[in-house]
Amino acid sequence: MMKKYNLAIVGATGLVGREFIKIIESRNFPADSIQLLASDRNPGRKILTGRGEMLVHETTPASFENIDIAVFIAGAEIAKYFVPLAMQSGAMVLDTSSAFRTGDSVPLVVPEVNPQDVENHKGIIANPNCSTIQLSVVLHPLNRVNRIMRVVVSTYQSVSGAGSTGTDELTRQTKTVIEGKTPIPHVFPHQIAFNVVPEVDVFMDNGYTREEFRLTDETRRVLHDAELSISATCVRVPVYVGHCQAVHIELTKPMAPDEARQILASAPGIKILDDPGVSLYPQPWSVAGSDEVLVGRVRQDIDRPTGLVLWTAADNLRKGTALNAIQILEESIKRGCL
Amino acid sequence: MMKKYNLAIVGATGLVGREFIKIIESRNFPADSIQLLASDRNPGRKILTGRGEMLVHETTPASFENIDIAVFIAGAEIAKYFVPLAMQSGAMVLDTSSAFRTGDSVPLVVPEVNPQDVENHKGIIANPNCSTIQLSVVLHPLNRVNRIMRVVVSTYQSVSGAGSTGTDELTRQTKTVIEGKTPIPHVFPHQIAFNVVPEVDVFMDNGYTREEFRLTDETRRVLHDAELSISATCVRVPVYVGHCQAVHIELTKPMAPDEARQILASAPGIKILDDPGVSLYPQPWSVAGSDEVLVGRVRQDIDRPTGLVLWTAADNLRKGTALNAIQILEESIKRGCL
Repeated sequence: MMKKYNLAIVGATGLVGREFIKIIESRNFPADSIQLLASDRNPGRKILTGRGEMLVHETTPASFENIDIAVFIAGAEIAKYFVPLAMQSGAMVLDTSSAFRTGDSVPLVVPEVNPQDVENHKGIIANPNCSTIQLSVVLHPLNRVNRIMRVVVSTYQSVSGAGSTGTDELTRQTKTVIEGKTPIPHVFPHQIAFNVVPEVDVFMDNGYTREEFRLTDETRRVLHDAELSISATCVRVPVYVGHCQAVHIELTKPMAPDEARQILASAPGIKILDDPGVSLYPQPWSVAGSDEVLVGRVRQDIDRPTGLVLWTAADNLRKGTALNAIQILEESIKRGCL
Repeated sequence: MMKKYNLAIVGATGLVGREFIKIIESRNFPADSIQLLASDRNPGRKILTGRGEMLVHETTPASFENIDIAVFIAGAEIAKYFVPLAMQSGAMVLDTSSAFRTGDSVPLVVPEVNPQDVENHKGIIANPNCSTIQLSVVLHPLNRVNRIMRVVVSTYQSVSGAGSTGTDELTRQTKTVIEGKTPIPHVFPHQIAFNVVPEVDVFMDNGYTREEFRLTDETRRVLHDAELSISATCVRVPVYVGHCQAVHIELTKPMAPDEARQILASAPGIKILDDPGVSLYPQPWSVAGSDEVLVGRVRQDIDRPTGLVLWTAADNLRKGTALNAIQILEESIKRGCL
């Protein structure tokens, strides 16, 4: 009989947390018990799940007793405090925040790309940033047959990347603008309704944002290619769910768009939506709820035979975070390292 | 005494047409008479201008009698039909559509970049595409001191690029979505409210859109650099006014961001907005009504010393179209070729 696990989900009430619970159920993840944890702001809160209404408990140092797997879907600050406690209690930790991603001792895994890395975990595995997952799933199959030398990527990231406070802000600001008034920004540094904001996470001294740096650094680590050159511009757009990326790639050898489409179509986690004649290409509103990274507008660079240009979209709450996290756990079980 | 000109404005009732009339007045353009022309859909329509309420006339073959300058701010189809008639009547034509841009005999002018080209006109000068103007104003001063080898640009283009039908569609669709209903697209190929659409103008056989091709082809022509390598992805975003561009540049030699900022700050038509520490960078909502291309987020490429990354915004109705057109006329007058 398959082993079953006692799960704790820290950050269960957030957008990604609720998506995680849904996916756990739909994929029949072997959970024996599920403990929903959140901050102490919502004591006594209940969430409706496939197992009925479930009480959300406050996260405390004692929350991880008898827990096999602790999934952190909260911010980096919460992870920094509670992850060591969960590990001390003997739980294996999967963290979706950026708190433990940079250490070389913590595997950073996209199951379609580097599943074998789960075997190296020392009690914790990190889920990469949503933009990294979306990019690396697409780069990996191409890179295997025709090494990628350089990537320039510009993102169009939805407000749900900032959680439900982000989606609430977009709704509130949109209504304010439609009424002819000027909205006041709270969650994002500037008005996001009817605007685009080229600032996702904080700026570093080199002029890139942390989000842009992560897209460079994490993608290299997931692809095991420290030499890969990536430059990114990350931009928040007034979209609820679904991140898009304009990806300009330089390969070692020329590759025809048809070949690229075939390689991508047979790669895991990718769905091709590419028929410009009928305006078929990935878009945020068509990607919400999708498990795959959608890829379209595959074309040879107009000026470089070794260049390839793509347009992709992914559900940042699912493949971007919750689904990838569950896939990591499934891969760990399959490989007997959980 | 300065010569004054009899002007005809074809497409006077559109978003750009009305912007053109405003700028003509604010810059004291030497207009003797102004004839406002439009399609026959709005007979008897009046527009409020600095000269009072002015009647809009239907465009007919006889509209260009005694006209010195005919400015076409209409679609390519209207331009194709009426431009030859205007030229036959002896008017000098300035066309903002794409109808006559591709011919080598028609100068394509961005006054900050190639003002001298107005002298080569044979009765007609073309205004480049709004995205071309925005990009070339920024590339030119850098290219003069440190030749640009390659540009990868991704755009974030507002709906006003499609005229008032575009802005109306965004408003209508936004209200529909807020009411919890599904909007039906008319102007854009897909829903534009709370979505991004990677299709601006029609697709070509090579997988690029015409808008993307223009950004490559026209920028080369304006910069007089047929060797310049440019690859573009053009995307429509749910923003009313103001186009943004993420511009990844490869120069011949390294250039420090401070040097780039100094070069750009002293170049015509550019305003630097670049202080990440206080979230200061170009955005659509801050560029509306601005005459300059705003430039910010200037940084050295994280992986390439010869790489430079910028983020720009321009008012697509003003510098993107109407203002550039008026600057072309002013330059032509200054050089005595009008």
